[in-house]
Amino acid sequence: MIDLNADLGEGLGPWRLGDDLALLSIVSSANVACGFHAGDPVIMRRTCAAAVERGVVIGAQVSYRDLSGFGRREMDVAPEELTAEVLYQIAALDGIARVEGDRVRYVKPHGALYNRIVRDPVQAEAVAAAVEAYDPALPVLTLPGSKLHEVTDLTIVNECFADRAYTPAGTLVSRREPGAVIEDVAQVADRALRMAVEGVVEATDGTRIRVDARSICVHGDTPGAVELAQAVRKALENAAVPLRSFA
Amino acid sequence: MIDLNADLGEGLGPWRLGDDLALLSIVSSANVACGFHAGDPVIMRRTCAAAVERGVVIGAQVSYRDLSGFGRREMDVAPEELTAEVLYQIAALDGIARVEGDRVRYVKPHGALYNRIVRDPVQAEAVAAAVEAYDPALPVLTLPGSKLHEVTDLTIVNECFADRAYTPAGTLVSRREPGAVIEDVAQVADRALRMAVEGVVEATDGTRIRVDARSICVHGDTPGAVELAQAVRKALENAAVPLRSFA
Amino acid sequence: MIDLNADLGEGLGPWRLGDDLALLSIVSSANVACGFHAGDPVIMRRTCAAAVERGVVIGAQVSYRDLSGFGRREMDVAPEELTAEVLYQIAALDGIARVEGDRVRYVKPHGALYNRIVRDPVQAEAVAAAVEAYDPALPVLTLPGSKLHEVTDLTIVNECFADRAYTPAGTLVSRREPGAVIEDVAQVADRALRMAVEGVVEATDGTRIRVDARSICVHGDTPGAVELAQAVRKALENAAVPLRSFA
Amino acid sequence: MIDLNADLGEGLGPWRLGDDLALLSIVSSANVACGFHAGDPVIMRRTCAAAVERGVVIGAQVSYRDLSGFGRREMDVAPEELTAEVLYQIAALDGIARVEGDRVRYVKPHGALYNRIVRDPVQAEAVAAAVEAYDPALPVLTLPGSKLHEVTDLTIVNECFADRAYTPAGTLVSRREPGAVIEDVAQVADRALRMAVEGVVEATDGTRIRVDARSICVHGDTPGAVELAQAVRKALENAAVPLRSFA
Repeated sequence: MIDLNADLGEGLGPWRLGDDLALLSIVSSANVACGFHAGDPVIMRRTCAAAVERGVVIGAQVSYRDLSGFGRREMDVAPEELTAEVLYQIAALDGIARVEGDRVRYVKPHGALYNRIVRDPVQAEAVAAAVEAYDPALPVLTLPGSKLHEVTDLTIVNECFADRAYTPAGTLVSRREPGAVIEDVAQVADRALRMAVEGVVEATDGTRIRVDARSICVHGDTPGAVELAQAVRKALENAAVPLRSFA
Repeated sequence: MIDLNADLGEGLGPWRLGDDLALLSIVSSANVACGFHAGDPVIMRRTCAAAVERGVVIGAQVSYRDLSGFGRREMDVAPEELTAEVLYQIAALDGIARVEGDRVRYVKPHGALYNRIVRDPVQAEAVAAAVEAYDPALPVLTLPGSKLHEVTDLTIVNECFADRAYTPAGTLVSRREPGAVIEDVAQVADRALRMAVEGVVEATDGTRIRVDARSICVHGDTPGAVELAQAVRKALENAAVPLRSFA
Repeated sequence: MIDLNADLGEGLGPWRLGDDLALLSIVSSANVACGFHAGDPVIMRRTCAAAVERGVVIGAQVSYRDLSGFGRREMDVAPEELTAEVLYQIAALDGIARVEGDRVRYVKPHGALYNRIVRDPVQAEAVAAAVEAYDPALPVLTLPGSKLHEVTDLTIVNECFADRAYTPAGTLVSRREPGAVIEDVAQVADRALRMAVEGVVEATDGTRIRVDARSICVHGDTPGAVELAQAVRKALENAAVPLRSFA
Repeated sequence: MIDLNADLGEGLGPWRLGDDLALLSIVSSANVACGFHAGDPVIMRRTCAAAVERGVVIGAQVSYRDLSGFGRREMDVAPEELTAEVLYQIAALDGIARVEGDRVRYVKPHGALYNRIVRDPVQAEAVAAAVEAYDPALPVLTLPGSKLHEVTDLTIVNECFADRAYTPAGTLVSRREPGAVIEDVAQVADRALRMAVEGVVEATDGTRIRVDARSICVHGDTPGAVELAQAVRKALENAAVPLRSFA
């Protein structure tokens, strides 16, 4: 059993990023932007409605408050502020999701915040505090090895990336390195399948490493991304791997 | 029995407007800003905590999305957008209020939106649609004669103003007219008392008119406003009029 | 002699609208967004650099302050505020344009502000006051019949639309009416040519009406828009009509 | 000869910080907020007009784009972005200042950006690049020892603080330490005088250290701050020290 998650609803006003409806037909979990790095109330509502219609589970994709930087710039936000900002975002999306017939079932930090809390226990704890306060039953999606695992009793769920190269140590090869992103569709689909079935991935030096992940993240905002995601889903279906959200 | 309501939490980052803690010791209902004209997640959380501590009922003070204009500029927002924006604000504040031990118990539109829906049935219906979708049990605070009364089955609660002059027709004298705002403390307290006990106010021509209101709005962001509000509360207490929220 | 103008630089952060570089190879005047409805400093700088490189004249596309609504929602902004906001936008873009080797040579209001000042002399005057204060030599691009013509001594330049149907009175057919937008490429190119050469357009009832316009507005953010603009330019070139900005 | 500088125009919409008019009667240089951490076009225009009226020199107080955090949160902004954002702010304020009869004569980074470029040469260079591009004659106000001194040929001007304790090494005692801020008015005025006349200050251990500064920064947004600034000015006047901006 595996989950596929993708970032969704990352538009603003007239702007769009990626093909939301195509992705909603592929994934089992939708990380819906909550208005701090992308997303506005109309887009949030439409995205939730479309997710509910397709039985896709809704998660709150929470971010630093940085619309003009798309949440990609690390910020030194004080813990009280960060907790309140995450809480605000979860609550806003949850209310909208409930109106559309479901609710927020997990939390996934976005962009610079996602990366920051992998290594910063203070911000990790601030994010966790918001989830604990809102609903301690909500799992949080992150990387294996994230500081989140150490600072909270929340359910922390790991994800992996079928289109990213892994080091022998099990971490992602930096995007600045050549070969960091795998573009061959068949190869990506094959890697996803092994991640789901065997729980392993082949590192850059050929060694097989364990991937401790319950969800595979697919992207939708790059050319060919939807085709890639479809190939991953197809490979899982062909192998009769059940696609099911963790949340 | 009467309610006193005031706008609260109308700061942003380092900025503040009015003396929130003083007002929270006077009113029975707090119209808490939700981040669209004022208020940020930290301020919202602190304001909710302080309101819960004092037993003051929390309402969502929803607005056009216009931080730089403080929600005071009328905007031609399309109904779908306005509904989604109001829904987002109610949900965000409700989630924060629940974390602090209570919840949003009513809705009060702010500034230009407040005035617009008094006469515009389309925007009134868009606001009502958000409340209906979120929780049809939530009352909405507005002026007598507002279009809201015509477009929805929600509970619509009227408010009045002890420091504003009334025309013989029962409407507020425009702020552009001399004498629109009554500044004498004793007079304001006396008017509030008659509004609460007899349900009447003396119009500019001396005629007594009925004031169909369950709540009196007090302000906190002008010099002397807190003293005025205290005088109103004192007059009600001295007359043994129970102070109780409508929500 | 005619000018072709288009809206450019209407992205924000990771978001884009239209194909700016394609349009910059077609038009003679670039209405560059200034950050209030779209555009951020990086996009503004890149757009100015690309315009200068191609010899395209830069204009300030000023707007209400409404990023989330893309400046499409009419706002009741007080004159002092509107003047200061327009001034701020012109100055910001002008500074960036100067760094890239040219400067702002005209002003074109965007979206709801564009439409509002056609009929509202108060906001028209507030916009004009900003241009007058900044540089009274800057022309303003608008519709024939706009209130701008009445409220200022600035040079007011009219534009027309080759892909829009005209009423016998010379106004645009509302977009809500069928046939308001002409999609046939050959027809649009032909209309543009007659507008440029003869100064006329055929209204919906077949009568020829005068089009008092020095510039034709082309769009870039709809499917097929760039092809349409290219066809217009080609038709003008084939007829040896000089393409030259008014500014 | 010495300069007194203060942060001004740090309001937004209905919000204010500090007493701008009082400060403008005290200082010789006004660091005017440009809309990214505070300030809106109306406030910027009014502040420039009041500065020009009093002969106070106008500087651009540029910041990270972070209204809700008042520019106090460090951000990992990429150099191209930071340069464009600083350029945008300088240009916007300069245009407004010119309309009011003067122009921007220097640049002072605000808050987290101010502190970041003291130690980060990449962001320091990005800020300097904006000033160089806009007008290489503009000086930049910063701390002695800032990385700005190393990365640019711009004129870099140092400032000091009469109300802050200094370490024997000549750096500011951290605000987290007791005694970091000196509140005694007479003592602050005396320190300012010695800074201006002798170019020295007494460090926490009693040693006299050189203060290499052409400007003294005074604050206006804390209780008693205006009185403190007035005392500093008075002490300088009594000692016949000419008050003159560096720009």
